[in-house]
Amino acid sequence: MFVEQRHELILREVSERGSVRLTDLVERVGVSMVTLRRDVEHLAAQGLLKRVHGGVTRVRTDLPGSPAADTPTTPATGDTTLTIGMLVPSATYYYPAVIKGAREQAAKLGARLVLGVSRYDEAEERLQVAQLVAGGGVEGLLLTTTRQPDESHGDWLAGLKVPTVLVERRAGLGGPASLLDAVASHHAHGAFLGVRHLAALGHKRIAMVTRESPTAPRVRQGFEAALRDLDLSGYADLGIDQEGPSHNQVGDVVRAVRAEGVTALLVHNDEDALLLVQHLRSAGVTIPDEVSIVAYDDEVAALSDPPLTAVAPPKSAVGAHAVDLLIRRLTIGPQTPRQHIALLPELRPRASTRPR
Amino acid sequence: MFVEQRHELILREVSERGSVRLTDLVERVGVSMVTLRRDVEHLAAQGLLKRVHGGVTRVRTDLPGSPAADTPTTPATGDTTLTIGMLVPSATYYYPAVIKGAREQAAKLGARLVLGVSRYDEAEERLQVAQLVAGGGVEGLLLTTTRQPDESHGDWLAGLKVPTVLVERRAGLGGPASLLDAVASHHAHGAFLGVRHLAALGHKRIAMVTRESPTAPRVRQGFEAALRDLDLSGYADLGIDQEGPSHNQVGDVVRAVRAEGVTALLVHNDEDALLLVQHLRSAGVTIPDEVSIVAYDDEVAALSDPPLTAVAPPKSAVGAHAVDLLIRRLTIGPQTPRQHIALLPELRPRASTRPR
Repeated sequence: MFVEQRHELILREVSERGSVRLTDLVERVGVSMVTLRRDVEHLAAQGLLKRVHGGVTRVRTDLPGSPAADTPTTPATGDTTLTIGMLVPSATYYYPAVIKGAREQAAKLGARLVLGVSRYDEAEERLQVAQLVAGGGVEGLLLTTTRQPDESHGDWLAGLKVPTVLVERRAGLGGPASLLDAVASHHAHGAFLGVRHLAALGHKRIAMVTRESPTAPRVRQGFEAALRDLDLSGYADLGIDQEGPSHNQVGDVVRAVRAEGVTALLVHNDEDALLLVQHLRSAGVTIPDEVSIVAYDDEVAALSDPPLTAVAPPKSAVGAHAVDLLIRRLTIGPQTPRQHIALLPELRPRASTRPR
Repeated sequence: MFVEQRHELILREVSERGSVRLTDLVERVGVSMVTLRRDVEHLAAQGLLKRVHGGVTRVRTDLPGSPAADTPTTPATGDTTLTIGMLVPSATYYYPAVIKGAREQAAKLGARLVLGVSRYDEAEERLQVAQLVAGGGVEGLLLTTTRQPDESHGDWLAGLKVPTVLVERRAGLGGPASLLDAVASHHAHGAFLGVRHLAALGHKRIAMVTRESPTAPRVRQGFEAALRDLDLSGYADLGIDQEGPSHNQVGDVVRAVRAEGVTALLVHNDEDALLLVQHLRSAGVTIPDEVSIVAYDDEVAALSDPPLTAVAPPKSAVGAHAVDLLIRRLTIGPQTPRQHIALLPELRPRASTRPR
């Protein structure tokens, strides 16, 4: 192999994997350590890669807040492939798409992703995080807490030993989690989009159907802001049990439609929307003729009969941006300001909404 | 020059400038167009750069939402250096640091930045933007409107012909600007930090001094949230004229300190804080003995006597992230979700605050 080919191979390895040990490169390139070191020094002098203890990393001088190319640094990546941990509350609803986005972005950046699932159990959450950080040896953490972080999370979050990005959770103003980086869907904006779609179709009285969840308050906030700003009437207190809509709850919805002039519903989440549509049909309520329905989350909305118009949070992008932010933080270090990133959902019109 | 050196030179040019015309490279590398094309094809086949019409660009497959390396794309960058426009309301207060951050990041990414200043004049703002987009030929825009965008900005913003990132302005929920990308300091968090610092020093009754500005509502929001959450008393209605604190306004502050039990002030902005400190000293009020002061903005706070504890918004990082987001948008296109990024301010303790 000629020197030029070696250089290209080295650069490709670094580009693909983010960081590589010299011992791995020796094997991969098939030269002596002496030759490899000379190649690496040469490429580093050209600014094409960066020497770190025991290995090389990609040059990332194009990131905001990153040091100039000539500033000596010791990236947190060290000399091995970066390993990051990810803890989500569910591996079946909503989070599969977030995980997929995170995995793909980690692969692009040459990092390894280790997954933990808390199943909305707070003790399990603490345990999983401890295991990821201690046992799994992760260098950074993507964390979706089982509920919105509050004062009770203070000591735990402050004691985390690795840089952490909060995912799909919003820290209260000034609360202990507000000093973490965070990436989340802008659910208030998403709910606003859903109501605006209904308002554009001529609906004037709209109700929101929701179950208790860490996300519900933000969906409700957007729903109520939209009612106010768009001069509509309606209310947000039709509830759904954790087990799905009960007989009484379906009755409440039927009454809202038949007796209280409600012509459209925003239903969060959309698994409940699918069930609700079935119950309403059994009760003789036709969709979208009698009531238009916008589902929130877009997990299964397209599979309903009729397919449900839905607000789709950018789940995959949330995962990707969270990985990107965490790896920036690990690469650049603490000197750039913490950031909270909100990604905007989109509306996907289908057959469950029509002009009033 | 050997082929290896040529390749390195080409990669360095692309790395430094983001995108380069082939005609420029021919001159720079000093070879024939035939040789250059062969080199470029070779490097492109290795995935080390990307061929576009008339030139080459850096490979950016590591961005969230970016296409996979093997997907054919036509980056918005075309075959010339990217030119982006930036419109700010002031080139003397606050924005110099934002501009500096933007300029440095643009240089890192090989883009050219063209600046316009509206001087808080809305007609001037519209004119400058039209000139940047039409006459200046900018491909993207960083926009700080003279006031918070509202419904009246709808048609204008929708009619902008280039991707636009809103800088240091927050779009109202569902408003016309909410569909733009946005980067801003998290001023509510900043104000919270200032009040928490005072609370930690034992102050129980804190007043906020402010002038009308697009930023003031967010600072007030954080101030009031902090009073509530930290169980303090105080108020946010001590005003300052556009020309600086008037005689009566200084009198109001003196009365708050001498007659109403106020022991600490949050003053927004910090040019006013500096003036207020001088007036208070003339009135015989000693700082920090009689009243502690936290300035908001940290433009001139360190120059005051005594140097003022201040909340520092991450101005330079806001400029850098805005450029980064705009160039991602120009490179990746519209398929990734819009994002709103909030960057957290920090507290810089100096001599104007002390334990009560």
